[in-house]
Amino acid sequence: MMSSQAAVVDRMGGRLSIAGLGPGDHALITPEVVQALAEATDVVGYIPYVARVAPREGLTLHPSDNREELSRARAALTLAAAGKRVVVVSSGDPGVFAMASAVFEAMEGRPDWQALDVRVLPGITAMLAAAARAGAPLGHDFCTINLSDNLKPWSLIEMRLRAAIGADMAMAFYNPRSTSRPHTFEQVLQLLRETCEPDRLVLFARAVSTPQERLQCVSLSQATPDMADMRTLVIVGSSTTRRVGRFVYTPRSVAA
Amino acid sequence: MMSSQAAVVDRMGGRLSIAGLGPGDHALITPEVVQALAEATDVVGYIPYVARVAPREGLTLHPSDNREELSRARAALTLAAAGKRVVVVSSGDPGVFAMASAVFEAMEGRPDWQALDVRVLPGITAMLAAAARAGAPLGHDFCTINLSDNLKPWSLIEMRLRAAIGADMAMAFYNPRSTSRPHTFEQVLQLLRETCEPDRLVLFARAVSTPQERLQCVSLSQATPDMADMRTLVIVGSSTTRRVGRFVYTPRSVAA
Repeated sequence: MMSSQAAVVDRMGGRLSIAGLGPGDHALITPEVVQALAEATDVVGYIPYVARVAPREGLTLHPSDNREELSRARAALTLAAAGKRVVVVSSGDPGVFAMASAVFEAMEGRPDWQALDVRVLPGITAMLAAAARAGAPLGHDFCTINLSDNLKPWSLIEMRLRAAIGADMAMAFYNPRSTSRPHTFEQVLQLLRETCEPDRLVLFARAVSTPQERLQCVSLSQATPDMADMRTLVIVGSSTTRRVGRFVYTPRSVAA
Repeated sequence: MMSSQAAVVDRMGGRLSIAGLGPGDHALITPEVVQALAEATDVVGYIPYVARVAPREGLTLHPSDNREELSRARAALTLAAAGKRVVVVSSGDPGVFAMASAVFEAMEGRPDWQALDVRVLPGITAMLAAAARAGAPLGHDFCTINLSDNLKPWSLIEMRLRAAIGADMAMAFYNPRSTSRPHTFEQVLQLLRETCEPDRLVLFARAVSTPQERLQCVSLSQATPDMADMRTLVIVGSSTTRRVGRFVYTPRSVAA
């Protein structure tokens, strides 16, 4: 088994695929990603995402902790350079606040790693899964903002929020709230209350497509910080976003 | 055959699924969408998207022309209300400048249609497929803007562009250019040249994942209107977006 596995690796050559597992449901994983996982010798990623990959003979799982993105990326590139077929897994889409940027950052100054066979395999990102469940709140122009201030200053987040609100775009917020920074999202809600009308629609979509899924759509005046946690994707509508029946959507047109 | 098909429809009840076919490659269609198409009695959509669905006995295809979104949505709702299992197909994701908003608009004032079993099935939208092919240009905060002025005034597009540029977000442009409005994209490039540095990276991603795929990444000073057409998705990087080897990505962090 080991020798036939080694022969496969040798024939196919090393490769690094940075793959999106989608929001949770198997039915939302693309066949392209399923195929990459079936051919992989090594799967690398944050613990809960690696746990979504079924173990099998010939596949080594490399789960690692949160906030280890750059060292995880280097480990994956090292394995690929050694001839392994590596899949780095992210939840959602790997290119949206996930592992793809970390892998390219890790390539800086390493022409050997830049020459590897590296592919990004897109996935259903959280905002699209959340929007689909609620209706079509992202049916017109929108902004996608990571509210975590781990890797950028709060002043930049605030400037981007004000720009998006000023231009009346819908907004999708990733990482709205964590136990290590419980106050950021309070500040965001405060800023929204100062700048938007009180009946602006706010969608809290938690763990969409998993057994823990919970959807809440409220007006801004009713929104509270505790409606969001680490697993919640928040969508704030534009001024035109509205309800129809049990759905929420943003119309395609804006009057001149 | 007809009667067994009718019995299936009756047992399962009418349903409307608004499904995303992804950018083109079959390997990028989710199993959820494949399943919905397998169970459908009727498929409704713009001609080239319906052409992507394989004909089979018991399935009626309803292709319609561009700019017929609202009447197409009404036709689909009428079929679902009559007990059919209808799939409205969009390219990419149905919630991003596609059919989902049109269906919800068509429900306005129609409580009977609002009560139907309607689901949105997400797909890989063009900007995520384009970003994946190029690297990770959307790895940090970004805006998604439809450049068509069919349904909104140019002044609004311009305001949103200026807001996104001012807040230094990457931008993904849908429908950058069409034969009916060849000058819009020239105006956009002109605005970018007035407000951004000349080496800002611009990605032109045409028909990603199809045989017609073509990727070009150039600096703003080299970008010309003819690099985009109806099938092109344009991504403009933020000031931090950079090349590494043959890839382009936006780093995850911004210095305080």
